[in-house]
Amino acid sequence: MMGAHPRRVGLLTGGGDCPGLNAVIRAVVKASTYHYGIEVYGIRDGFDGLMNDNMDLLTADDVSGILHRGGTILGSSNRANPFRVPVEVDGEKRYEDQSDQVVAVARARRLEAIIVVGGDGSLTIGAQLIECGLPVIGVPKTIDNDLDSTDVTFGFDSARAVATDAVDRLHSTAESHQRIMVVEVMGRYAGWIALEAGMAGGGDVILIPEIPFDLEKVATAIEKRGQSGRRFSIVVVAEGATPRGGQIFVDRRIEDSPEAIRLGGIGRWVAHELEERLQWESRVTVLGHLQRGGSPTSFDRILGTRFGVEAARLAAEKLHGRMVSLRGTEVTSVPLADAVAKPRRVDPSSAIVSAARAVGTCFGD
Amino acid sequence: MMGAHPRRVGLLTGGGDCPGLNAVIRAVVKASTYHYGIEVYGIRDGFDGLMNDNMDLLTADDVSGILHRGGTILGSSNRANPFRVPVEVDGEKRYEDQSDQVVAVARARRLEAIIVVGGDGSLTIGAQLIECGLPVIGVPKTIDNDLDSTDVTFGFDSARAVATDAVDRLHSTAESHQRIMVVEVMGRYAGWIALEAGMAGGGDVILIPEIPFDLEKVATAIEKRGQSGRRFSIVVVAEGATPRGGQIFVDRRIEDSPEAIRLGGIGRWVAHELEERLQWESRVTVLGHLQRGGSPTSFDRILGTRFGVEAARLAAEKLHGRMVSLRGTEVTSVPLADAVAKPRRVDPSSAIVSAARAVGTCFGD
Amino acid sequence: MMGAHPRRVGLLTGGGDCPGLNAVIRAVVKASTYHYGIEVYGIRDGFDGLMNDNMDLLTADDVSGILHRGGTILGSSNRANPFRVPVEVDGEKRYEDQSDQVVAVARARRLEAIIVVGGDGSLTIGAQLIECGLPVIGVPKTIDNDLDSTDVTFGFDSARAVATDAVDRLHSTAESHQRIMVVEVMGRYAGWIALEAGMAGGGDVILIPEIPFDLEKVATAIEKRGQSGRRFSIVVVAEGATPRGGQIFVDRRIEDSPEAIRLGGIGRWVAHELEERLQWESRVTVLGHLQRGGSPTSFDRILGTRFGVEAARLAAEKLHGRMVSLRGTEVTSVPLADAVAKPRRVDPSSAIVSAARAVGTCFGD
Amino acid sequence: MMGAHPRRVGLLTGGGDCPGLNAVIRAVVKASTYHYGIEVYGIRDGFDGLMNDNMDLLTADDVSGILHRGGTILGSSNRANPFRVPVEVDGEKRYEDQSDQVVAVARARRLEAIIVVGGDGSLTIGAQLIECGLPVIGVPKTIDNDLDSTDVTFGFDSARAVATDAVDRLHSTAESHQRIMVVEVMGRYAGWIALEAGMAGGGDVILIPEIPFDLEKVATAIEKRGQSGRRFSIVVVAEGATPRGGQIFVDRRIEDSPEAIRLGGIGRWVAHELEERLQWESRVTVLGHLQRGGSPTSFDRILGTRFGVEAARLAAEKLHGRMVSLRGTEVTSVPLADAVAKPRRVDPSSAIVSAARAVGTCFGD
Repeated sequence: MMGAHPRRVGLLTGGGDCPGLNAVIRAVVKASTYHYGIEVYGIRDGFDGLMNDNMDLLTADDVSGILHRGGTILGSSNRANPFRVPVEVDGEKRYEDQSDQVVAVARARRLEAIIVVGGDGSLTIGAQLIECGLPVIGVPKTIDNDLDSTDVTFGFDSARAVATDAVDRLHSTAESHQRIMVVEVMGRYAGWIALEAGMAGGGDVILIPEIPFDLEKVATAIEKRGQSGRRFSIVVVAEGATPRGGQIFVDRRIEDSPEAIRLGGIGRWVAHELEERLQWESRVTVLGHLQRGGSPTSFDRILGTRFGVEAARLAAEKLHGRMVSLRGTEVTSVPLADAVAKPRRVDPSSAIVSAARAVGTCFGD
Repeated sequence: MMGAHPRRVGLLTGGGDCPGLNAVIRAVVKASTYHYGIEVYGIRDGFDGLMNDNMDLLTADDVSGILHRGGTILGSSNRANPFRVPVEVDGEKRYEDQSDQVVAVARARRLEAIIVVGGDGSLTIGAQLIECGLPVIGVPKTIDNDLDSTDVTFGFDSARAVATDAVDRLHSTAESHQRIMVVEVMGRYAGWIALEAGMAGGGDVILIPEIPFDLEKVATAIEKRGQSGRRFSIVVVAEGATPRGGQIFVDRRIEDSPEAIRLGGIGRWVAHELEERLQWESRVTVLGHLQRGGSPTSFDRILGTRFGVEAARLAAEKLHGRMVSLRGTEVTSVPLADAVAKPRRVDPSSAIVSAARAVGTCFGD
Repeated sequence: MMGAHPRRVGLLTGGGDCPGLNAVIRAVVKASTYHYGIEVYGIRDGFDGLMNDNMDLLTADDVSGILHRGGTILGSSNRANPFRVPVEVDGEKRYEDQSDQVVAVARARRLEAIIVVGGDGSLTIGAQLIECGLPVIGVPKTIDNDLDSTDVTFGFDSARAVATDAVDRLHSTAESHQRIMVVEVMGRYAGWIALEAGMAGGGDVILIPEIPFDLEKVATAIEKRGQSGRRFSIVVVAEGATPRGGQIFVDRRIEDSPEAIRLGGIGRWVAHELEERLQWESRVTVLGHLQRGGSPTSFDRILGTRFGVEAARLAAEKLHGRMVSLRGTEVTSVPLADAVAKPRRVDPSSAIVSAARAVGTCFGD
Repeated sequence: MMGAHPRRVGLLTGGGDCPGLNAVIRAVVKASTYHYGIEVYGIRDGFDGLMNDNMDLLTADDVSGILHRGGTILGSSNRANPFRVPVEVDGEKRYEDQSDQVVAVARARRLEAIIVVGGDGSLTIGAQLIECGLPVIGVPKTIDNDLDSTDVTFGFDSARAVATDAVDRLHSTAESHQRIMVVEVMGRYAGWIALEAGMAGGGDVILIPEIPFDLEKVATAIEKRGQSGRRFSIVVVAEGATPRGGQIFVDRRIEDSPEAIRLGGIGRWVAHELEERLQWESRVTVLGHLQRGGSPTSFDRILGTRFGVEAARLAAEKLHGRMVSLRGTEVTSVPLADAVAKPRRVDPSSAIVSAARAVGTCFGD
């Protein structure tokens, strides 16, 4: 008999780290507790904790003082997928669908719904769980900002700020010498961080996955600057940027591949090639996970808070199967199933790319 | 015979300082020069320079390296208004309309149009100049983000970041003592900075002009926190916040009035009153112009750049009498005359205020 | 029989907040636990917790992840003094010496020694406790850096950084207008923060307690700048700065006095007076506790760590009655009794003040 | 006849970039101009400008507003050495001593002395020039802080701050996953940045050139942390760190060698090896020139200012052949010839290394 018990929802954070996750957690817990009298169970390490029933009640006290902190107090897991659990059967490795177990755990815990804060991967799993009869509410989380069903996702603003700060620093030191400064930023399939940090930092060259580049043209642009008395150039490269023809497509999965070690990443490769061609010194910075760390920006904390409050409302009003989203200045929601379907990549013919070109940025195309 | 001469536009920045102004200037100059072959004349100190023909040609070199800098390389002026110039006639002070002179200067300089980057005041003057036959294009600039015809204005994100950083710092030190920490932020008529910095920093109390506060209720909220073991509270006050009944409405114009010296500002007053009521120590921080200074955030640099590029396009295509604007993720434009008419204040019943309440914020109402 | 028990020391943080306290706590606990097998008892809220036996064992886990955090996980207390405890006897208020109780608590807890991290006040109490037979080891903590027996104290570098950042921000916005920007920083008796933040930020005028100022001279200096085309001036004022003759000596205790409310602080007063004299607009920023908050700088974290490790060593080797200290690049220790005796104020004839004058700084004398 | 002319000194900045250079330039110019009535000639691009007589008079206006800026307004040059100028004679490359030309230029310009702001290389050239009869005054500049004749050099504090910020960011994101985070910082021969940023950031493993590491021991330390429930470890690696036996000594000159491209740097190598051994995910950040860029810290600005003022004094008082230096809190000077002779590396048995070990840091030895 439901009435006898307080209402309950589960909350998990999945996938890569993203500044603003704690803002979402805090908002879901405070809004649910104060406002709707609903208990929130914090599930540890993403779907891993859901499969293994690893969760605890989160009180307002548990989430106090976390708003400004990076990371996620719930932990996360990149790999765990209840629909594809690696098992060993007679010494050989197979994959099993253990979604039924997840549903069982949720039932046993009397969780009305699971709020899944995650990216493409986690939200897709969330959408599948709905079909298994487990109510899910989605909160989009992608540092790359590559989701079409929301104007922007939290985490992106913070990552862009870190990358912009890097470009600023390189600017101030580049001016003292004749040099090419290359900074490699995140973005395997979408170049938003490189594009916007490049624009914000006044990078001279911006290389992104959506616009395959011709190194010859990059070299020419840098040479032109040199002739006009600018002794340095700053090149912002998305980790997934690829030269025309994509000879080194391998970089796309830089971290998984033995090649990666050989090659040292697209940034290093670009710096090396330009040094060869132009006989200018080059220097490389690889930001890596700096972009996922540190205290979230005000924007990301507010967006995370608003997303969390809206997710709590959707749960309270049993509006399951939806994902929160920002449109203009308003927080709204969209069907989860549609949301995950549409990636958002940089459109080479978009106004923002044109704006970058208008102020003189070279994209190497 | 126009053809013989390069096309020309004037550019001025008016009103208070705002991070991102240099991004606009840089973008207008680079886009006009590279892209449209239009010369940009930089007008010094706002309308003052327009009245006194104080302007110079700006080249791409002039605007290189300014993107990340606060302030405006053109200078500004708070007071200058060609329609209301103070003059002395037989020893007594009067005001004269010298707009005809402005038009004459623009003609003499062969300026096709003037791009006015400014707030409410400057844009209103801009709109009036249009009626005098001087083509004007507007770029909105208000650190308070109180303009209805754009989702957001550059400068606000930077100001909010400074205010949020202040709340963060107070948090980390407040926890060590039993204390009330009051921080006074900008916002005489619109409370956006206080509201959003308060949300981003996790302020316990947020006091804004749009929601007159009852000090008794603020004291009660702080006391409750104390009873639940939280030994400190952080109060974010907009400089224009007023208690119910508005006894100290004077604070609204804190800087012009002798009262201001007596009273020392609303922040100090609130701290003093709470200390009296609760017998807790209180401390006050008044951010003042810190919020207008420093390097703009990535967001403000990009928005400033996009606004500048769009303003250059409007000028090139002779789309005069319009103001650039952000809607969702797209830069567009609106009629200047309408734009200045609609202020944008915090709606006490809006979703964002509800979100702040949902996570436990007290507005003193 | 000592041998049967692990050795134990107590640790408390007293007085005002100071970035780097957590670094000291972490280092004392880790060094004592890992290196010497000595248990550390964390005493809550300074001497208050020592009087009321409010303390817990601190493990390495308890202090993990606190190094970068401002504040002190032990809490502090500005007032508590075991030699002067306010009590009420037949309705009237008196002060009692309850130091014997403190000694009793320490004995009962088998604390070999108490490590006192504090400023002038707390260390003086520490020195008195030694005379009562309670072994004490001192770690100096003063954000004002006004202790002669160490080259520098942790916290000062962080406070100076906050104040310098403020001066930088004001610079970038001041340049856009004709203005006097006044920033009030900490320092009631010693002007180190104002002096060094003023030097680091390129402040035009620096007013400190050690050099009584003549407002006329300040006004003249600002006017001179104006004539030489510099339209703005930045004035850095220590909260304890006083005009010649000291008419408003009251400001020295700005926060305790009703006068404070009337006057709004020395910063506001200076801004007001200069505005009157020069007819330039002025703006005021009062940093207040921002200077005590936020994440400590690298310097303060390292110094705090080194001080903590040295304090643990002194405790382990029973070198009681000493205070850790930095001399050049080496951490050493001095007799606690001597240490507290010698304040360190800015010497108006010192090389660093001359250096500030050499680059054109006005001290108003 | 000297008297007829104002006195003159030359000023150049040599070698790699370093935050604080502009503070020195500003102080030398302001102190010389205001205080001693000596003209300062700014020499472009280090010794290159001295050989080619590329210099201009610097006024107080020229150096206004540069204090907070990174880089050097004079530009620099890594290679130029008047004692070893590459020339081509009958198609083959040789090196020529052109120091006589430098002396001639200085005479022609009537430069009493040259103030050389530089590191090991530039100061050694300075010392040699003295023997050629050209008075030189030295200002030490090394971001690595590897000079024995001064307690610290400007630039180091800023570089350490950037590296510490990186470690902080990695901390906040590492906690969310089981991971090894590797950050590669500057320091080819001296490990100060790695050591102190590691201490300040609470890095778990610190690898520096002065302490050859055993990867097996590093892996064991990380594994131990894992067993005690800490799911992540942060490894701070100096670019010049070398494994026992030094198989990959090549990394020492990572940027000059084709090997560098193959190997991708010591940081990437360590991450790869640890991933192999422990089967934990690893991530790499390579800070590179971020550490030389950005606005100098307050400490570096003040030290640069004090060094500049002292150098101006030495020049004014004709105390040639000396290098300014910091001892404790006092700025003093030492004979230039001795100064360059003594490098300062991390002593593995020093108190600061012991302090790092005492709080649990693993050095892999």
